[in-house]
Amino acid sequence: MAPCLSFFFLFLCSFSAIPANSLPTFFPGAAYQSLIKQAKISKPKLPFKTHYFPQTLDHFTFQPKSSKLFYQKYLINSDYWRKGAPIFVYTGNEGNIEWFAANTGFMLDIAPKFKALLVFIEHRFYGKSMPFGKDSYQSAKTLGYLNSQQALADFAVLITSLKQNLSSEASPVVVFGGSYGGMLAAWFRLKYPHIAIGALASSAPILQFDKLIPWSSFYDAVSQDFKDVSLNCYQVIKGSWAELEAMSTQKQALAELSKTFRTCKSLHSTASARDWLWTAFVYTAMVNYPTKADFMKPLPAYPVQKMCKIIDKIPSRATKLSRAFAAASLYYNYSRSENCFKIEHEVDGHGLHGWDWQTCTEMVMPMTCSKESMFPPSGFDYEEFAKQCRMKYGVSPRPHWITTEFGGERIQKVLKRFGSNIIFSNGMQDPWSRGGSSPC
Amino acid sequence: MAPCLSFFFLFLCSFSAIPANSLPTFFPGAAYQSLIKQAKISKPKLPFKTHYFPQTLDHFTFQPKSSKLFYQKYLINSDYWRKGAPIFVYTGNEGNIEWFAANTGFMLDIAPKFKALLVFIEHRFYGKSMPFGKDSYQSAKTLGYLNSQQALADFAVLITSLKQNLSSEASPVVVFGGSYGGMLAAWFRLKYPHIAIGALASSAPILQFDKLIPWSSFYDAVSQDFKDVSLNCYQVIKGSWAELEAMSTQKQALAELSKTFRTCKSLHSTASARDWLWTAFVYTAMVNYPTKADFMKPLPAYPVQKMCKIIDKIPSRATKLSRAFAAASLYYNYSRSENCFKIEHEVDGHGLHGWDWQTCTEMVMPMTCSKESMFPPSGFDYEEFAKQCRMKYGVSPRPHWITTEFGGERIQKVLKRFGSNIIFSNGMQDPWSRGGSSPC
Repeated sequence: MAPCLSFFFLFLCSFSAIPANSLPTFFPGAAYQSLIKQAKISKPKLPFKTHYFPQTLDHFTFQPKSSKLFYQKYLINSDYWRKGAPIFVYTGNEGNIEWFAANTGFMLDIAPKFKALLVFIEHRFYGKSMPFGKDSYQSAKTLGYLNSQQALADFAVLITSLKQNLSSEASPVVVFGGSYGGMLAAWFRLKYPHIAIGALASSAPILQFDKLIPWSSFYDAVSQDFKDVSLNCYQVIKGSWAELEAMSTQKQALAELSKTFRTCKSLHSTASARDWLWTAFVYTAMVNYPTKADFMKPLPAYPVQKMCKIIDKIPSRATKLSRAFAAASLYYNYSRSENCFKIEHEVDGHGLHGWDWQTCTEMVMPMTCSKESMFPPSGFDYEEFAKQCRMKYGVSPRPHWITTEFGGERIQKVLKRFGSNIIFSNGMQDPWSRGGSSPC
Repeated sequence: MAPCLSFFFLFLCSFSAIPANSLPTFFPGAAYQSLIKQAKISKPKLPFKTHYFPQTLDHFTFQPKSSKLFYQKYLINSDYWRKGAPIFVYTGNEGNIEWFAANTGFMLDIAPKFKALLVFIEHRFYGKSMPFGKDSYQSAKTLGYLNSQQALADFAVLITSLKQNLSSEASPVVVFGGSYGGMLAAWFRLKYPHIAIGALASSAPILQFDKLIPWSSFYDAVSQDFKDVSLNCYQVIKGSWAELEAMSTQKQALAELSKTFRTCKSLHSTASARDWLWTAFVYTAMVNYPTKADFMKPLPAYPVQKMCKIIDKIPSRATKLSRAFAAASLYYNYSRSENCFKIEHEVDGHGLHGWDWQTCTEMVMPMTCSKESMFPPSGFDYEEFAKQCRMKYGVSPRPHWITTEFGGERIQKVLKRFGSNIIFSNGMQDPWSRGGSSPC
């Protein structure tokens, strides 16, 4: 069985050259590139037919250009479908839709029992669903249409049209999603209760905004996952950053580091080694499934345990950094296909990525690293963050918009009072669990 | 006491020069002008302080220009306010906000009991809340931002900010509105349950879209109001249109008509006399309050009864048209201030009106006149309607958008299931009652 609702989420708080209480770097290019690559490489044969829906560019304004159509990709599996039975819809998130379809086995698993139609809808501005073709990421003028409300409206229009075309208006619709897709599923149920009767929102941190939860929650939870397995493992990783930081001031440090990290080409900065390690620990915590899986990378069951086993096995005379590297290698090379590591990736030609844009506009999720985490302490400086967004895109974030639009302090009450039919399936080890709503 | 939640709504289906099963004319300039005039003339001293809120132009896109701010007007009464007590918000509709504040006595009546703060928020693109100043109505490029979703988001942002400024985050908010404002109140409760705990939606025809109710409902209900009072009255009005139509082919008909209708200046077409009569009967049915009131015009209690009394008193040898005119005069001249009638009003300089724009984009509410109504039978030709919208504004309507966004067939179920806390206060004589949801 494919992993049940496997998800990713792409926020890292970094530290090098950034003082404590300053801006974390979100969505580092390295991590994103590896995702892109991963998504492109893994093209399993999926039991879905591909369709394209003529979608409206802007649902919420009525200028002449608002009604421009673009083609939104969606996948259908009707192998188990019996007319009148439920329609299960995956509300696509920040990546091409095949990736999510290939890693959401749960929907395929339950489809026969419910005789359900399965629909996976790609999120606008990801995969093939590009409103302005190859110019979609050109500037804020085009990217301006990339946001969650427009995506939810896309889902509403597409589902409504599909049901009409299938003469299945009476079929109940249940939405599914993970991570940002889980947020979309939950929000879709809240905003479009006439279309979806329920939602399964997995690892969906709808409380990760404003000051709804402590900003350090995410990295504290990642750290706790390692600490729960082995205190030594947690301490080694926690200590490794200082060793790396110290190397940045040493002569010939980069050559030594390149050797330790078995890089294919000599490193140009310690920062890339840091991001590389960081990505490995964070993503491994996020995909710490009890089964062998291949969402971000091929990994064994309980990969955090496996990483810590590697660290704990190495004698303590070895540096913490070398032990951290050995653990991180599990993430990058579990399949043992790599002879060396391409730690410094080429920068994307656009310099723009969809999720980065979303964090610079509405998805402002402040994250910090506390002293108790296994990452170096860092804060969140909103002004600095906003400044960088203005420099990159020429727009300012709207840090309170998501809580205004979808609910802040009162959202938990609303969910309970409304009999919302939303399942927030956060495992206790899930780094996003504090940001998810309590199951209700 | 001011009339309790008094409202208007501006749709007329017309007939002259339009064949049956063709396009009704919406929102005729004459009626609109009289509204504008009325709104300007009646400036009662209201117990409110005026404020302006810096509002975001476009909540749902993030282009550089989307974040432009405009000043949204709102009125506050804190005479009865005790911190922590409820906040009652009127979700403004298609007119200047003082007009609604002056005619929503119910909120002022109940404020002392609840120690409530009263807030009346003006709808964008009406009154003083013009995002582009005097250029706001220039074209679809500016008008594109005038729609219900943006208005709801305005309310959400303003209310959230106001509560923070008053340190009254815990105060429950209840929204109130009538007609289109009632639709907004109901929709606001549906879309922003974390902000409003309930809504009183008066004469709010949220079912007047697509094919949710018979298209003839509105004019059938207007007709029934007159029929219920007097069958003769109904028959006289029903017969008057043919007499008017016949005059359009007669020589010197306009001179005769001008005399009959006591016009200040000679008429140029029978169509204006038709719209004048039509407006009188439709609006009188809409404001058929049991008390003397002055919402659209100064009128006595039960004005439909009074109109029919006038018709029934005139001997049947008089023409139906002259009797219909006498009845309509009650609407235009109850205060006896008019020596003659300005039936043909000057056309607005812009040739554009807010509500007309809204009907040409999202508020597509098909209306027809059945053979049973007291108006001449007419149909609704969507293609012709859309063509006219394209000619006027260069945009096409989205006839299914409102039911997609806010709910179609399933909305009644959703309202019941969700314990929506929405009161739909439709009187049985209200022409909009079929379009309103059942009270729940």
